[in-house]
Amino acid sequence: MVARAMGNCGIGDLRLVNPRDGWPNASALAAASGADRIINDARVFDSTTDAVADLQAVLATTARPRDMTTDVLTPNTAAARLRAEVSAGANAGVLFGKEARGLSNNDIAHAEAVITVPLNPQFTSLNLAQAVFVVAYEWFQAADQTPDAELVMPKDTRPANKEEMAGLFEHLEDELIACGFLRVKEKRPVMVRNIRNIFQRARLTEQEVRTLRGIVSGLAKFGGRFRE
Amino acid sequence: MVARAMGNCGIGDLRLVNPRDGWPNASALAAASGADRIINDARVFDSTTDAVADLQAVLATTARPRDMTTDVLTPNTAAARLRAEVSAGANAGVLFGKEARGLSNNDIAHAEAVITVPLNPQFTSLNLAQAVFVVAYEWFQAADQTPDAELVMPKDTRPANKEEMAGLFEHLEDELIACGFLRVKEKRPVMVRNIRNIFQRARLTEQEVRTLRGIVSGLAKFGGRFRE
Repeated sequence: MVARAMGNCGIGDLRLVNPRDGWPNASALAAASGADRIINDARVFDSTTDAVADLQAVLATTARPRDMTTDVLTPNTAAARLRAEVSAGANAGVLFGKEARGLSNNDIAHAEAVITVPLNPQFTSLNLAQAVFVVAYEWFQAADQTPDAELVMPKDTRPANKEEMAGLFEHLEDELIACGFLRVKEKRPVMVRNIRNIFQRARLTEQEVRTLRGIVSGLAKFGGRFRE
Repeated sequence: MVARAMGNCGIGDLRLVNPRDGWPNASALAAASGADRIINDARVFDSTTDAVADLQAVLATTARPRDMTTDVLTPNTAAARLRAEVSAGANAGVLFGKEARGLSNNDIAHAEAVITVPLNPQFTSLNLAQAVFVVAYEWFQAADQTPDAELVMPKDTRPANKEEMAGLFEHLEDELIACGFLRVKEKRPVMVRNIRNIFQRARLTEQEVRTLRGIVSGLAKFGGRFRE
Protein backbone atom coordinates (compact mmCIF):
# COMPACT_ATOMS: atom_id res chain seq x y z
CA MET A 1 0.00 0.00 0.00
CA VAL A 2 2.94 2.30 0.70
CA ALA A 3 4.47 1.50 -2.70
CA ARG A 4 1.16 2.28 -4.36
CA ALA A 5 0.91 5.63 -2.56
CA MET A 6 4.47 6.41 -3.68
CA GLY A 7 3.68 5.47 -7.27
CA ASN A 8 0.59 7.68 -7.25
CA CYS A 9 2.83 10.61 -6.40
CA GLY A 10 5.83 9.89 -8.64
CA ILE A 11 8.19 8.70 -5.91
CA GLY A 12 10.21 5.55 -6.54
CA ASP A 13 12.94 4.93 -3.96
CA LEU A 14 11.62 2.71 -1.14
CA ARG A 15 14.06 1.77 1.65
CA LEU A 16 13.14 -0.70 4.38
CA VAL A 17 14.87 -1.15 7.73
CA ASN A 18 14.56 -4.69 9.13
CA PRO A 19 11.11 -5.45 7.67
CA ARG A 20 9.12 -7.55 10.16
CA ASP A 21 7.98 -10.19 7.67
CA GLY A 22 11.24 -10.49 5.73
CA TRP A 23 11.97 -9.45 2.17
CA PRO A 24 11.07 -10.03 -0.65
CA ASN A 25 7.47 -10.42 0.46
CA ALA A 26 4.78 -11.81 -1.83
CA SER A 27 1.89 -10.14 -0.01
CA ALA A 28 3.58 -6.74 -0.39
CA LEU A 29 3.71 -7.33 -4.13
CA ALA A 30 0.03 -8.27 -4.17
CA ALA A 31 -1.01 -5.12 -2.26
CA ALA A 32 1.07 -2.85 -4.50
CA SER A 33 -1.43 -3.33 -7.36
CA GLY A 34 0.76 -2.12 -10.18
CA ALA A 35 3.55 -0.48 -8.22
CA ASP A 36 5.62 -3.64 -8.73
CA ARG A 37 8.75 -1.82 -9.77
CA ILE A 38 8.85 0.11 -6.51
CA ILE A 39 8.55 -3.16 -4.55
CA ASN A 40 11.12 -4.94 -6.70
CA ASP A 41 13.60 -2.06 -6.48
CA ALA A 42 13.15 -1.60 -2.70
CA ARG A 43 16.37 -1.90 -0.71
CA VAL A 44 16.66 -3.44 2.74
CA PHE A 45 18.96 -2.02 5.42
CA ASP A 46 19.99 -3.26 8.86
CA SER A 47 19.78 0.17 10.46
CA THR A 48 18.27 3.59 9.93
CA THR A 49 21.80 4.98 9.98
CA ASP A 50 22.69 2.90 6.92
CA ALA A 51 19.39 3.67 5.18
CA VAL A 52 19.92 7.45 5.31
CA ALA A 53 23.71 7.49 4.88
CA ASP A 54 23.73 9.02 1.36
CA LEU A 55 20.96 11.55 2.04
CA GLN A 56 21.63 15.21 2.76
CA ALA A 57 18.07 16.10 3.73
CA VAL A 58 15.95 13.89 6.00
CA LEU A 59 12.61 14.62 7.63
CA ALA A 60 10.91 12.25 10.09
CA THR A 61 7.15 11.77 10.41
CA THR A 62 5.91 11.52 13.97
CA ALA A 63 3.18 12.66 16.32
CA ARG A 64 3.95 16.06 17.80
CA PRO A 65 7.10 15.45 19.91
CA ARG A 66 6.95 16.21 23.66
CA ASP A 67 10.45 15.53 24.91
CA MET A 68 12.77 16.94 22.26
CA THR A 69 13.52 20.30 20.67
CA THR A 70 12.81 20.22 16.95
CA ASP A 71 11.14 22.06 14.11
CA VAL A 72 7.67 20.66 13.47
CA LEU A 73 6.41 21.14 9.91
CA THR A 74 3.03 20.56 8.32
CA PRO A 75 3.14 18.13 5.35
CA ASN A 76 2.54 21.08 3.03
CA THR A 77 5.48 23.08 4.39
CA ALA A 78 7.66 19.97 4.53
CA ALA A 79 6.96 19.30 0.85
CA ALA A 80 7.98 22.83 -0.12
CA ARG A 81 11.17 22.43 1.92
CA LEU A 82 12.02 19.05 0.37
CA ARG A 83 11.40 20.46 -3.13
CA ALA A 84 13.80 23.31 -2.32
CA GLU A 85 16.43 20.89 -1.01
CA VAL A 86 16.15 18.69 -4.10
CA SER A 87 16.28 21.71 -6.41
CA ALA A 88 19.53 22.66 -4.68
CA GLY A 89 20.93 19.21 -5.50
CA ALA A 90 20.34 17.33 -2.24
CA ASN A 91 19.27 13.70 -1.95
CA ALA A 92 16.20 13.92 0.26
CA GLY A 93 14.19 11.32 2.14
CA VAL A 94 11.40 10.97 4.67
CA LEU A 95 11.39 8.49 7.56
CA PHE A 96 8.21 6.65 8.56
CA GLY A 97 7.90 4.40 11.62
CA LYS A 98 6.01 1.20 12.30
CA GLU A 99 2.29 1.76 12.33
CA ALA A 100 1.73 0.94 16.00
CA ARG A 101 4.81 2.46 17.57
CA GLY A 102 6.14 5.08 15.15
CA LEU A 103 9.77 6.07 14.96
CA SER A 104 12.11 5.82 17.93
CA ASN A 105 13.81 8.99 19.17
CA ASN A 106 17.06 7.52 17.84
CA ASP A 107 15.51 7.36 14.37
CA ILE A 108 14.13 10.89 14.64
CA ALA A 109 17.60 12.13 15.57
CA HIS A 110 18.67 11.51 11.94
CA ALA A 111 16.28 14.21 10.76
CA GLU A 112 16.74 17.99 10.57
CA ALA A 113 13.04 18.47 11.37
CA VAL A 114 9.88 16.44 11.84
CA ILE A 115 6.59 16.32 9.96
CA THR A 116 3.41 16.09 12.02
CA VAL A 117 0.10 15.72 10.15
CA PRO A 118 -2.52 17.97 11.77
CA LEU A 119 -5.49 15.67 12.48
CA ASN A 120 -8.65 15.48 14.55
CA PRO A 121 -7.23 15.44 18.11
CA GLN A 122 -9.82 12.80 19.09
CA PHE A 123 -8.56 10.37 16.45
CA THR A 124 -4.95 10.79 15.43
CA SER A 125 -4.02 7.15 14.82
CA LEU A 126 -2.95 7.26 11.17
CA ASN A 127 -2.54 4.16 9.03
CA LEU A 128 1.05 3.89 7.70
CA ALA A 129 0.02 3.93 4.03
CA GLN A 130 -2.12 7.02 4.72
CA ALA A 131 0.83 8.77 6.38
CA VAL A 132 3.04 7.99 3.39
CA PHE A 133 0.30 9.06 1.02
CA VAL A 134 -0.30 12.43 2.62
CA VAL A 135 3.40 13.35 2.55
CA ALA A 136 3.81 12.01 -0.99
CA TYR A 137 0.63 13.81 -2.09
CA GLU A 138 1.92 17.13 -0.77
CA TRP A 139 5.26 16.46 -2.48
CA PHE A 140 3.49 15.91 -5.78
CA GLN A 141 1.14 18.89 -5.41
CA ALA A 142 4.07 21.19 -4.60
CA ALA A 143 5.25 20.90 -8.21
CA ASP A 144 1.94 20.19 -9.91
CA GLN A 145 0.54 22.71 -12.40
CA THR A 146 -3.10 21.59 -12.41
CA PRO A 147 -5.38 24.64 -12.23
CA ASP A 148 -7.26 24.94 -8.92
CA ALA A 149 -10.55 24.96 -10.79
CA GLU A 150 -11.11 24.41 -14.48
CA LEU A 151 -14.16 24.00 -16.67
CA VAL A 152 -13.50 20.89 -18.75
CA MET A 153 -15.66 19.87 -21.70
CA PRO A 154 -15.73 17.29 -24.48
CA LYS A 155 -13.26 17.91 -27.30
CA ASP A 156 -15.89 18.72 -29.91
CA THR A 157 -17.24 21.77 -28.12
CA ARG A 158 -16.05 25.06 -26.65
CA PRO A 159 -17.37 27.70 -24.23
CA ALA A 160 -20.21 29.76 -25.68
CA ASN A 161 -19.31 33.33 -26.52
CA LYS A 162 -21.35 36.32 -25.39
CA GLU A 163 -22.99 36.75 -28.79
CA GLU A 164 -24.30 33.16 -28.59
CA MET A 165 -25.48 33.81 -25.03
CA ALA A 166 -27.30 36.98 -26.19
CA GLY A 167 -28.94 34.97 -28.97
CA LEU A 168 -30.21 32.43 -26.44
CA PHE A 169 -31.50 35.13 -24.09
CA GLU A 170 -33.33 37.06 -26.83
CA HIS A 171 -34.85 33.86 -28.16
CA LEU A 172 -35.98 32.78 -24.69
CA GLU A 173 -37.31 36.23 -23.76
CA ASP A 174 -39.24 36.58 -27.05
CA GLU A 175 -40.97 33.29 -26.37
CA LEU A 176 -41.57 34.17 -22.71
CA ILE A 177 -43.31 37.35 -23.86
CA ALA A 178 -45.22 35.41 -26.51
CA CYS A 179 -46.50 32.84 -23.97
CA GLY A 180 -47.43 35.50 -21.39
CA PHE A 181 -44.82 34.56 -18.77
CA LEU A 182 -43.42 38.11 -18.88
CA ARG A 183 -46.76 39.85 -19.20
CA VAL A 184 -46.25 42.18 -16.16
CA LYS A 185 -44.13 44.79 -17.92
CA GLU A 186 -42.76 46.54 -14.82
CA LYS A 187 -41.38 43.25 -13.47
CA ARG A 188 -39.80 42.34 -16.78
CA PRO A 189 -36.29 43.86 -16.32
CA VAL A 190 -35.67 42.14 -12.98
CA MET A 191 -37.07 38.79 -14.12
CA VAL A 192 -35.01 38.91 -17.31
CA ARG A 193 -31.86 39.70 -15.35
CA ASN A 194 -32.49 36.83 -12.91
CA ILE A 195 -33.13 34.35 -15.70
CA ARG A 196 -30.01 35.45 -17.59
CA ASN A 197 -28.02 35.06 -14.36
CA ILE A 198 -28.95 31.37 -14.05
CA PHE A 199 -27.45 30.59 -17.43
CA GLN A 200 -24.41 32.86 -17.07
CA ARG A 201 -23.52 31.05 -13.84
CA ALA A 202 -23.63 27.67 -15.57
CA ARG A 203 -20.95 28.80 -18.08
CA LEU A 204 -22.54 27.09 -21.07
CA THR A 205 -20.81 25.48 -24.00
CA GLU A 206 -21.73 26.40 -27.55
CA GLN A 207 -23.43 22.98 -27.87
CA GLU A 208 -25.46 23.59 -24.71
CA VAL A 209 -26.67 26.94 -26.05
CA ARG A 210 -27.99 25.14 -29.13
CA THR A 211 -29.61 22.49 -26.92
CA LEU A 212 -31.33 25.15 -24.81
CA ARG A 213 -32.57 26.99 -27.91
CA GLY A 214 -34.02 23.71 -29.14
CA ILE A 215 -35.76 23.27 -25.79
CA VAL A 216 -37.24 26.79 -25.99
CA SER A 217 -38.48 26.21 -29.54
CA GLY A 218 -39.86 22.78 -28.64
CA LEU A 219 -41.78 24.05 -25.64
CA ALA A 220 -43.04 27.15 -27.46
CA LYS A 221 -44.21 25.42 -30.64
CA PHE A 222 -45.37 22.01 -29.52
CA GLY A 223 -46.00 22.37 -25.76
CA GLY A 224 -48.01 19.38 -24.48
CA ARG A 225 -48.68 18.11 -28.01
CA PHE A 226 -47.06 14.68 -27.76
CA ARG A 227 -47.53 13.71 -24.11
CA GLU A 228 -46.92 9.95 -23.71
CA MET B 1 -10.36 2.15 6.22
CA VAL B 2 -12.64 4.87 4.88
CA ALA B 3 -14.22 5.33 8.33
CA ARG B 4 -10.76 5.62 9.86
CA ALA B 5 -9.72 8.26 7.30
CA MET B 6 -12.94 10.15 8.06
CA GLY B 7 -12.30 9.96 11.81
CA ASN B 8 -8.75 11.25 11.36
CA CYS B 9 -10.21 14.34 9.74
CA GLY B 10 -13.21 14.98 11.97
CA ILE B 11 -15.90 13.79 9.54
CA GLY B 12 -18.64 11.51 10.87
CA ASP B 13 -21.49 10.99 8.41
CA LEU B 14 -20.88 7.89 6.27
CA ARG B 15 -23.53 6.93 3.71
CA LEU B 16 -23.36 3.73 1.69
CA VAL B 17 -25.25 2.92 -1.50
CA ASN B 18 -25.89 -0.81 -1.97
CA PRO B 19 -22.71 -2.06 -0.25
CA ARG B 20 -21.40 -5.13 -2.08
CA ASP B 21 -20.88 -7.27 1.01
CA GLY B 22 -24.04 -6.27 2.85
CA TRP B 23 -24.42 -4.22 6.01
CA PRO B 24 -23.60 -4.31 8.90
CA ASN B 25 -20.24 -5.86 8.06
CA ALA B 26 -17.93 -7.27 10.73
CA SER B 27 -14.77 -6.88 8.66
CA ALA B 28 -15.52 -3.17 8.12
CA LEU B 29 -15.70 -2.78 11.89
CA ALA B 30 -12.37 -4.58 12.29
CA ALA B 31 -10.63 -2.37 9.71
CA ALA B 32 -11.99 0.84 11.24
CA SER B 33 -9.64 0.45 14.23
CA GLY B 34 -11.34 2.85 16.59
CA ALA B 35 -13.68 4.60 14.18
CA ASP B 36 -16.46 2.27 15.38
CA ARG B 37 -19.00 5.03 15.84
CA ILE B 38 -18.70 6.06 12.20
CA ILE B 39 -19.29 2.45 11.11
CA ASN B 40 -22.16 1.95 13.55
CA ASP B 41 -23.83 5.22 12.53
CA ALA B 42 -23.40 4.60 8.78
CA ARG B 43 -26.64 4.67 6.80
CA VAL B 44 -27.41 2.45 3.83
CA PHE B 45 -29.35 3.70 0.80
CA ASP B 46 -30.78 1.95 -2.26
CA SER B 47 -29.74 4.70 -4.65
CA THR B 48 -27.39 7.66 -4.91
CA THR B 49 -30.47 9.85 -5.42
CA ASP B 50 -31.77 8.86 -1.98
CA ALA B 51 -28.33 9.19 -0.38
CA VAL B 52 -27.91 12.82 -1.44
CA ALA B 53 -31.54 13.93 -1.17
CA ASP B 54 -31.08 16.21 1.87
CA LEU B 55 -27.76 17.71 0.69
CA GLN B 56 -27.51 21.13 -0.94
CA ALA B 57 -23.86 20.84 -1.97
CA VAL B 58 -22.44 17.69 -3.54
CA LEU B 59 -19.07 17.13 -5.19
CA ALA B 60 -18.10 13.88 -6.92
CA THR B 61 -14.60 12.41 -6.99
CA THR B 62 -13.56 11.01 -10.34
CA ALA B 63 -10.69 10.82 -12.77
CA ARG B 64 -10.62 13.82 -15.08
CA PRO B 65 -13.85 13.52 -17.09
CA ARG B 66 -13.64 13.29 -20.89
CA ASP B 67 -17.20 13.21 -22.05
CA MET B 68 -19.03 15.76 -19.93
CA THR B 69 -18.84 19.48 -19.23
CA THR B 70 -18.10 20.15 -15.59
CA ASP B 71 -15.96 22.15 -13.20
CA VAL B 72 -12.93 20.12 -12.12
CA LEU B 73 -11.50 21.13 -8.75
CA THR B 74 -8.32 20.11 -6.95
CA PRO B 75 -8.97 18.60 -3.48
CA ASN B 76 -7.57 21.78 -1.94
CA THR B 77 -9.94 24.05 -3.84
CA ALA B 78 -12.84 21.66 -3.30
CA ALA B 79 -12.22 21.74 0.46
CA ALA B 80 -12.30 25.54 0.50
CA ARG B 81 -15.53 25.48 -1.49
CA LEU B 82 -17.16 22.91 0.81
CA ARG B 83 -16.11 24.93 3.87
CA ALA B 84 -17.73 27.99 2.30
CA GLU B 85 -20.93 26.06 1.53
CA VAL B 86 -21.13 24.68 5.07
CA SER B 87 -20.43 28.12 6.57
CA ALA B 88 -23.37 29.39 4.54
CA GLY B 89 -25.58 26.73 6.13
CA ALA B 90 -25.57 24.01 3.44
CA ASN B 91 -25.47 20.28 4.10
CA ALA B 92 -22.51 19.18 2.01
CA GLY B 93 -21.28 15.78 0.89
CA VAL B 94 -18.73 14.14 -1.37
CA LEU B 95 -19.44 11.10 -3.57
CA PHE B 96 -16.85 8.33 -3.99
CA GLY B 97 -17.20 5.41 -6.39
CA LYS B 98 -16.25 1.78 -6.20
CA GLU B 99 -12.50 1.35 -6.23
CA ALA B 100 -12.26 -0.46 -9.57
CA ARG B 101 -14.87 1.39 -11.58
CA GLY B 102 -15.42 4.74 -9.91
CA LEU B 103 -18.69 6.63 -10.10
CA SER B 104 -21.11 6.25 -12.99
CA ASN B 105 -21.97 9.35 -15.01
CA ASN B 106 -25.46 9.12 -13.49
CA ASP B 107 -23.91 9.42 -10.03
CA ILE B 108 -21.69 12.30 -11.10
CA ALA B 109 -24.75 14.11 -12.44
CA HIS B 110 -25.85 14.69 -8.80
CA ALA B 111 -22.81 16.92 -8.24
CA GLU B 112 -22.30 20.61 -9.00
CA ALA B 113 -18.62 19.94 -9.75
CA VAL B 114 -16.09 17.12 -9.60
CA ILE B 115 -12.90 16.65 -7.63
CA THR B 116 -9.93 15.13 -9.46
CA VAL B 117 -6.78 14.41 -7.45
CA PRO B 118 -3.72 15.45 -9.49
CA LEU B 119 -1.47 12.36 -9.52
CA ASN B 120 1.46 10.90 -11.39
CA PRO B 121 -0.02 10.35 -14.87
CA GLN B 122 1.77 6.98 -15.09
CA PHE B 123 0.02 5.68 -11.98
CA THR B 124 -3.34 7.23 -11.22
CA SER B 125 -5.14 4.22 -9.76
CA LEU B 126 -6.01 5.47 -6.30
CA ASN B 127 -7.12 3.19 -3.49
CA LEU B 128 -10.62 4.17 -2.25
CA ALA B 129 -9.51 4.83 1.33
CA GLN B 130 -6.69 7.03 0.00
CA ALA B 131 -9.13 9.00 -2.13
CA VAL B 132 -11.37 9.56 0.89
CA PHE B 133 -8.38 10.44 3.01
CA VAL B 134 -6.99 13.07 0.66
CA VAL B 135 -10.33 14.87 0.37
CA ALA B 136 -10.96 14.58 4.12
CA TYR B 137 -7.41 15.72 4.85
CA GLU B 138 -7.84 18.84 2.72
CA TRP B 139 -11.19 19.47 4.42
CA PHE B 140 -9.51 19.31 7.83
CA GLN B 141 -6.50 21.41 6.82
CA ALA B 142 -8.77 24.11 5.38
CA ALA B 143 -9.87 25.03 8.92
CA ASP B 144 -6.79 23.94 10.86
CA GLN B 145 -4.73 26.55 12.68
CA THR B 146 -1.46 24.58 13.09
CA PRO B 147 1.51 26.82 12.26
CA ASP B 148 3.30 25.82 9.04
CA ALA B 149 6.56 25.45 10.93
CA GLU B 150 7.08 25.69 14.66
CA LEU B 151 10.02 25.07 16.96
CA VAL B 152 8.68 22.85 19.73
CA MET B 153 10.65 22.06 22.89
CA PRO B 154 10.19 20.29 26.22
CA LYS B 155 8.07 22.20 28.76
CA ASP B 156 10.94 22.89 31.15
CA THR B 157 12.98 24.96 28.70
CA ARG B 158 12.57 28.00 26.45
CA PRO B 159 14.41 29.55 23.48
CA ALA B 160 17.73 31.13 24.43
CA ASN B 161 17.76 34.92 24.35
CA LYS B 162 20.43 36.93 22.58
CA GLU B 163 22.27 37.75 25.81
CA GLU B 164 22.66 34.02 26.50
CA MET B 165 23.81 33.48 22.92
CA ALA B 166 26.39 36.29 23.28
CA GLY B 167 27.62 34.66 26.50
CA LEU B 168 28.11 31.36 24.70
CA PHE B 169 29.91 32.99 21.77
CA GLU B 170 32.27 35.01 23.99
CA HIS B 171 33.02 31.96 26.10
CA LEU B 172 33.71 29.84 23.01
CA GLU B 173 35.81 32.52 21.28
CA ASP B 174 37.89 33.16 24.44
CA GLU B 175 38.73 29.49 24.61
CA LEU B 176 39.39 29.29 20.86
CA ILE B 177 41.89 32.13 21.21
CA ALA B 178 43.38 30.46 24.29
CA CYS B 179 43.88 27.14 22.51
CA GLY B 180 45.34 28.75 19.38
CA PHE B 181 42.46 27.86 17.01
CA LEU B 182 41.95 31.59 16.23
CA ARG B 183 45.64 32.49 16.17
CA VAL B 184 45.58 34.08 12.65
CA LYS B 185 44.25 37.47 13.68
CA GLU B 186 43.21 38.72 10.24
CA LYS B 187 41.03 35.62 9.69
CA ARG B 188 39.41 35.94 13.10
CA PRO B 189 36.35 38.14 12.20
CA VAL B 190 35.20 35.85 9.36
CA MET B 191 35.79 32.66 11.34
CA VAL B 192 33.95 34.03 14.34
CA ARG B 193 31.01 35.07 12.19
CA ASN B 194 30.81 31.65 10.54
CA ILE B 195 30.95 29.83 13.87
CA ARG B 196 28.27 32.08 15.38
CA ASN B 197 26.11 31.45 12.31
CA ILE B 198 26.10 27.67 12.92
CA PHE B 199 24.61 28.11 16.37
CA GLN B 200 22.21 30.91 15.41
CA ARG B 201 20.77 28.66 12.71
CA ALA B 202 20.11 25.88 15.22
CA ARG B 203 17.89 28.20 17.32
CA LEU B 204 19.14 26.92 20.67
CA THR B 205 17.18 26.56 23.87
CA GLU B 206 18.46 28.05 27.11
CA GLN B 207 19.28 24.50 28.28
CA GLU B 208 21.25 23.81 25.10
CA VAL B 209 23.32 26.99 25.60
CA ARG B 210 24.28 25.71 29.04
CA THR B 211 25.12 22.28 27.61
CA LEU B 212 27.36 23.84 24.93
CA ARG B 213 29.14 26.02 27.51
CA GLY B 214 29.78 22.87 29.54
CA ILE B 215 31.24 21.22 26.43
CA VAL B 216 33.53 24.21 25.78
CA SER B 217 34.73 24.21 29.41
CA GLY B 218 35.20 20.44 29.42
CA LEU B 219 37.25 20.43 26.22
CA ALA B 220 39.30 23.48 27.26
CA LYS B 221 40.16 22.34 30.78
CA PHE B 222 40.38 18.58 30.58
CA GLY B 223 40.93 17.85 26.85
CA GLY B 224 42.12 14.23 26.42
CA ARG B 225 42.62 13.76 30.18
CA PHE B 226 40.18 10.89 30.76
CA ARG B 227 40.28 8.98 27.49
CA GLU B 228 38.77 5.51 28.01
